[in-house]
Amino acid sequence: MQEKPLILISNDDGVDAKGINELIQALRSIGEIFVMAPDSPRSGASSAITSQIAISFSIVHQEEGLHIYKCSGTPTDCIKLALETIVPRTPDLVIGGINHGDNSAVNVHYSGTMGVVLEGCMKGIPSIGYSLCDHNPNADFSPTIPYVVHITKQTLKHGLPNGTCLNVNFPELPPYKGIKVCRQTIGRWEREWCHCLHPRSGEKLYWITGEFTNHEPQSIDTDKWALDNGFVAITPTQIDLTAYELMEQINNNWDLSF
Amino acid sequence: MQEKPLILISNDDGVDAKGINELIQALRSIGEIFVMAPDSPRSGASSAITSQIAISFSIVHQEEGLHIYKCSGTPTDCIKLALETIVPRTPDLVIGGINHGDNSAVNVHYSGTMGVVLEGCMKGIPSIGYSLCDHNPNADFSPTIPYVVHITKQTLKHGLPNGTCLNVNFPELPPYKGIKVCRQTIGRWEREWCHCLHPRSGEKLYWITGEFTNHEPQSIDTDKWALDNGFVAITPTQIDLTAYELMEQINNNWDLSF
Repeated sequence: MQEKPLILISNDDGVDAKGINELIQALRSIGEIFVMAPDSPRSGASSAITSQIAISFSIVHQEEGLHIYKCSGTPTDCIKLALETIVPRTPDLVIGGINHGDNSAVNVHYSGTMGVVLEGCMKGIPSIGYSLCDHNPNADFSPTIPYVVHITKQTLKHGLPNGTCLNVNFPELPPYKGIKVCRQTIGRWEREWCHCLHPRSGEKLYWITGEFTNHEPQSIDTDKWALDNGFVAITPTQIDLTAYELMEQINNNWDLSF
Repeated sequence: MQEKPLILISNDDGVDAKGINELIQALRSIGEIFVMAPDSPRSGASSAITSQIAISFSIVHQEEGLHIYKCSGTPTDCIKLALETIVPRTPDLVIGGINHGDNSAVNVHYSGTMGVVLEGCMKGIPSIGYSLCDHNPNADFSPTIPYVVHITKQTLKHGLPNGTCLNVNFPELPPYKGIKVCRQTIGRWEREWCHCLHPRSGEKLYWITGEFTNHEPQSIDTDKWALDNGFVAITPTQIDLTAYELMEQINNNWDLSF
């Protein structure tokens, strides 16, 4: 009998979030599941690692084909630690999500769920992030599930080139019109802070918020356009941040003879 | 009289670190300096934002041409908050550093200093990260200073294309052989955890550590090669993570007809 694929799952909403638990159930038919997820929400954790303090993990649940652990570190810590402790061999897939909220456009940089995925990718493992454009803790993930299963199976079948991974986002509301392969939208977060006064000290406190402005709303090859128009958006993503054209420009035009 | 350039500075080692204070002194001759830096070390903060709690900031020092604030948030929070509170106009430059430690290769993903730089870039401001390959809190930054001033002036003169920024790393030891424009090295962190037992509870605690394996030590166009061979490495960096070739491969080979 062929060995079932080993799938390592994490997220940034924490081990108790609805999204990760729906993901786990959806993928049990595909593979042996190991979960190492943060013990509480870590939204916006990006690829942060815990460098100032020590972290720990413990088992939450175990049954045939399913092993769930929680960890006191960041989403990226979860993947790094799982790979050296809980998995019996290198996973066939690393999967982040299903995130409660949109990780398209520049959100990829702030997302702890995409931190999970980039970390899997940096370890040479095909990795996918799934996100639903709905922050509600009780969001309805059921329309995403057939797509999650299909895209996961396609990834197992075709693999992903070294240094690349997938950022998959689902529109807030079904029915979905299909799947579109997209590029990262150009745009900017603005008006990012609201403030209140500390009730006793009077100190001014700032909460992050913001409005995203899409700088290219007409570009039909972007992930935001796909989501705004009812398509499931697959944004192929890479860990190489080099701006190759700028290398040439600097070599040609700058004074580097120092 | 022409207005002096306005330069916004932050880091991830915290407002008291030697590196940021040497950077501030080096750049005072070039521009009006605003600093918003974390109130304590945030090494490895990546592009994390503080989403679960409110943050605050306060002034540390003010004199003609220099305004230093500290903030309870992440490096990325510092830039976002500074842009909406302390600066009188949009800065001409955002600068991160000088970091105590190497931010070349995949370290760009974990670095809070590069989080600062990517954030400035996402806000449309030419942005540069400076890092010295020496973690010592008392590292000698003096050999880097003439290069920092030169590269900063070149950036003011030539600008940077939208969506791009610079990741500049200095070898641990001078004399430097010159400046090389590089791409991000391919390689991987391994053996990333050491553990100890909690002295009272006996719980197993994990500290992050690790060894970086360079997968292409012979590639002379990479940032690790430059640093290993005594050159100052400028790695032009971008915020677009799209893997364009993979878009085509998926469109051509995958079953997306769902």
